[in-house]
Formats: sequence, C-alpha cells, structure tokens
Amino acid sequence: MRSITNLQQGISEGQSLSLAKGITLVENNLEGYTDLLQSLKRNTNTQLIGITGPPGAGKSTLVNALLHEWTAANKKVAVLSVDPSSPFNYGALLGDRIRMSDFYLNDHVFIRSLASRGSLGGLNAKIIEISDVVLASHFDYVLIETVGVGQSEVEIAGIAETTIVVVVPEAGDEVQTMKAGVMEIADIFVVNKSDRPNASDFIKNLKILAHSKATNWETPVVKCIATQQEGISELNEMIKKHHLAIAQNADKKISLLTEKAYQLIQEKRMTDIDKQQLHKELSTLVLENDFNFYAWLAAY
Amino acid sequence: MRSITNLQQGISEGQSLSLAKGITLVENNLEGYTDLLQSLKRNTNTQLIGITGPPGAGKSTLVNALLHEWTAANKKVAVLSVDPSSPFNYGALLGDRIRMSDFYLNDHVFIRSLASRGSLGGLNAKIIEISDVVLASHFDYVLIETVGVGQSEVEIAGIAETTIVVVVPEAGDEVQTMKAGVMEIADIFVVNKSDRPNASDFIKNLKILAHSKATNWETPVVKCIATQQEGISELNEMIKKHHLAIAQNADKKISLLTEKAYQLIQEKRMTDIDKQQLHKELSTLVLENDFNFYAWLAAY
Repeated sequence: MRSITNLQQGISEGQSLSLAKGITLVENNLEGYTDLLQSLKRNTNTQLIGITGPPGAGKSTLVNALLHEWTAANKKVAVLSVDPSSPFNYGALLGDRIRMSDFYLNDHVFIRSLASRGSLGGLNAKIIEISDVVLASHFDYVLIETVGVGQSEVEIAGIAETTIVVVVPEAGDEVQTMKAGVMEIADIFVVNKSDRPNASDFIKNLKILAHSKATNWETPVVKCIATQQEGISELNEMIKKHHLAIAQNADKKISLLTEKAYQLIQEKRMTDIDKQQLHKELSTLVLENDFNFYAWLAAY
Repeated sequence: MRSITNLQQGISEGQSLSLAKGITLVENNLEGYTDLLQSLKRNTNTQLIGITGPPGAGKSTLVNALLHEWTAANKKVAVLSVDPSSPFNYGALLGDRIRMSDFYLNDHVFIRSLASRGSLGGLNAKIIEISDVVLASHFDYVLIETVGVGQSEVEIAGIAETTIVVVVPEAGDEVQTMKAGVMEIADIFVVNKSDRPNASDFIKNLKILAHSKATNWETPVVKCIATQQEGISELNEMIKKHHLAIAQNADKKISLLTEKAYQLIQEKRMTDIDKQQLHKELSTLVLENDFNFYAWLAAY
C-alpha cells in the first residue's frame, strides 16, 4: 500500500513517471490497481473533453490545433487517443507525426495512445479507468479522442463532460440524415475544413438542427480550418463556456457517473463469464440425449 | 402452453405463419417465448451457414445466386439478414429489390431481415434465438448474412456451422494484412467478381494464406462471379463438403454451443443491469463528501 500511496501522490503532483506507472498498473490489472483507483482524487479544475467524428474529419489536426492554443496559454493538457488512425497513435502520415513531435517533448503535454480492445463494451472499461488516473493529476484539460464509428462516439459522450463532434462540409446533404445519436451527444459541433465549397449551406442546416434540439444548452456550431489554426480561439471560448454551463449542474454529474458505473459494471460482468468452464460443462451435457440448451441456459 | 405446443408443431412442419409468429414472439420477448425456445427441436438435416464480408463484396448477390442454385434443386432455404445495406433488408437499389422479389413469393424460401440492435453484444442474442426458431423448421439451409464490420463477422463464425467469407480482388495488396480474425473464421473463402484485373494474384496469395492456417480442414478459395451465377455450383459443392467434414466433429459442436451460451449469457447479464436504479443510487451518493466511486463499484 505504501508504494500505491507514493504513486497516488506522484500522480496528483503531475509527475510524468508516476502517471505512466499508474496507467500501466491500471491498463494491465497489475497488483494494487484497484487500490490506486480508490486512492485517486479527481482534480476538480480539470475539464474532461471528448472529441469524436468520422474518419477524415480532421480530429487529430483539431487536437493538434487545440494543443497549440492551450500550450501558448501555458495550460497543461493530456491527450488519450483511442483512434487507431490518429497520428497520436502513430498510424498516420509521416508529416503528421513530425508535426506532433513538438508536443511529445513538451512538459505540459502528456500523450497516450490506448488500444481499443475491440471489446464488446466499445469504449472499454480500461479507458474509463485510465482517464480517471489522468484526471487525478495536474492537467487543465484532458482530451479523449475517439473515432466516430459505431457505438464509441455515443459512449465517449457518456464519459466526457464536454463532447465535441467534428464534421466536414463534404457530408453535404447528409446533415439531414445525420445519425440521431450524433446530434444528441454533441455539446459543440466543429465544422472543420470550413473553407470548402458548400460549407455555408452545410453550416446553416447544421445550425437549424442544433437549434431544434436545444434545451438548457444550445449546441454551438464552430467553423474551423484546423490546419491553419483558424477558429480555434472561438472553439476554446465555447469549451470554456460549456464548462461553466455544466459546472453547477448536478443532474449532468449524476448522469455521467451513472454511465460510467454502467459501462464498468457491464465490462466486469462480461469478464466474469468463464468460457472455459462453459465449454467443460457443455462437453458433458451434449452427450445427454435429452439435453435442453435453453432450459439449461435459464439457470444462468 | 397449449398454444406454444401448436406453434412449435407448426414451426417443425414448416408452416410460414407459425414460423413468422414464432420469430415475432422471440424477437419481442412476448409471453411464452422461453417456453417456445425450450420446446424446439433442432432439425438435424439443416445446415447453418454464415455469410460475411466487407460492404461491397457482393454478399447479397451471392446469397441471391445460392438461392437460385438451391431452389433449382428443390431445396428449402431460410435467409436471415443482419446487414442493413442488404437488399434483403430493403436497403439497396431498386434493381436488386426487383431481382429479389421472385424469392419473396417462393414457398421454399423464407426471408427475414433482422435489425441489428447495435447492441454491445454485436450479433445480438435475439439473432441467435431467432436462428434457433428457424433451425427447428423444415429447411435444408439456413443462411445468416452479416456485414463484416467490427466484431460481427467473428461472432457469426461463433454461431454458424459453415462460415463463408466473401472478398473482392480490389483488396489487392491487402491480402497480406487481412485481419487475423477474418482468416481464422473462414471455412470457405469466396473471391467474388473474380473477373477483375489482378484477381489471379489476389487469389494466389489468398490460397497461400488459407493453406498456412489449414488444420483438419483446408479452407478452399472459390472464384465466383455471383451476378452471372458463375462458380456457384463449385461453392455449393464446398458447402456440402464442409458439412460432411464437421458432421462427426464433436469438438466443433461443443465449441459452437459454448460460443452460443457465452453470447446469450453476456447479453442477459448486460440487460440485467438496471441503469435507472444505478442513477437513483448515485444521486444520493454523490451528495456525500467522502463518496468513493471505485470503492462503491467494487461491490458490484
């Protein structure tokens, strides 16, 4: 326990080595990892932001642009990337990687790629737990970047306090048919590459849709050209604004916690099923002529 | 129970109305649905085939071609389609739909589209249960068609006795990097649109890979042009051959049953988590200053 206490302290002080150790501990279920999770104290100054969107929307470029904005303002940032095609995951063109290398050497920026385990839970329990390790550290912003495919975009919104959905005007006519789930999870829309033709129609339609779902918070539509750092200050303002808007919102806090609990319990229960044991049991049972699979299953 | 017995009898006799009723019962968890599942007897003459592959590989055209082959031989076939872009799911071009309409009126062909619930379990429990309803009927072949994206292709292989993976030569160089999962699940590879340029290189490489993973069964690579009914007889022969090869294989049977049990138990446990109850519980707990989320979670 003593070493866990040290680790927890190192994490809270923002020591990179402690942070890396803590993440490794949690990621691999090493001894003491539950103790560590229970010992962590959330840094209440940290804003937890999720960025999602379809492949090619420029999520990583946008993260890159936000890193420039924030580091220039002397902010501390952690990026957890779950997108396998992200340059943060070493998966992209060399140019991107070189562009990113500044931040790898920046003391105020912590970048970690996480393998999506392709688990049934989508955004898996480990990512939630790892983000909790990072949230107990000294960061102003924690960014989780996920590729918006399937369920993961909806799950990120269940965890992140501020969810940014990045789209590009190419989607064109598709604004109308944008997945209901995506409309609902966005706290902020970013239309990246907004200098493309047809962008203004796209933005207009998106604003109408965003307005139609407005409740307490009207989802803003921010125009960006992330490669040129354009619109990033405006985005940053919206991020701050959303943080303030939800700061006193207990319902939001409870919802986020419920979603987190739900996903962690799900994963735990699935891990609890012992496939080998099932196999052993069934090996004997199938030999019985009157074996009734569904009657047997009902007992589980 | 009397009506369930009638229903079970109607299904076993291949009455379309009973079949449709049974599926609806199971699909919607209506009263008596577990009784029905427990009362069903698997038709041991039926071969359960899974067809998967990337979007655009021509899965539906291939299913269509197989239906022509089988109905010409007076075989009875059921198609369960879980691919939202499949014409069997009314999702494609009008031309495809018109082509399919023959079979919708064919007494020997039963077609049902199933909504993938986007459940965390991927290929969800309902699809397994529905296929068990159909397997208790009078069919020679039951085909489950899924789009090969994410986990679903791996899951179909866990359920189907014979898994056909459809690919197109366009994938070209990608043979080498084909997902390990896809290599492993294929009992039969179909290279559709095999008249395309570069097809022969692709096929050669695929055969080398298929051979490298051969154990008891050497995965054949069948060349098809499904739109022209070319290669379909050869495919049909391979399907029969695989059926014979696994007929006496108790290990395969136990593995399939284990996978089925595993997936059904997973889904059941996930459904058992009461999110509203969690929300209620957390609503009170977050008010406590010393509330420790992970300590609380450990009790679940």
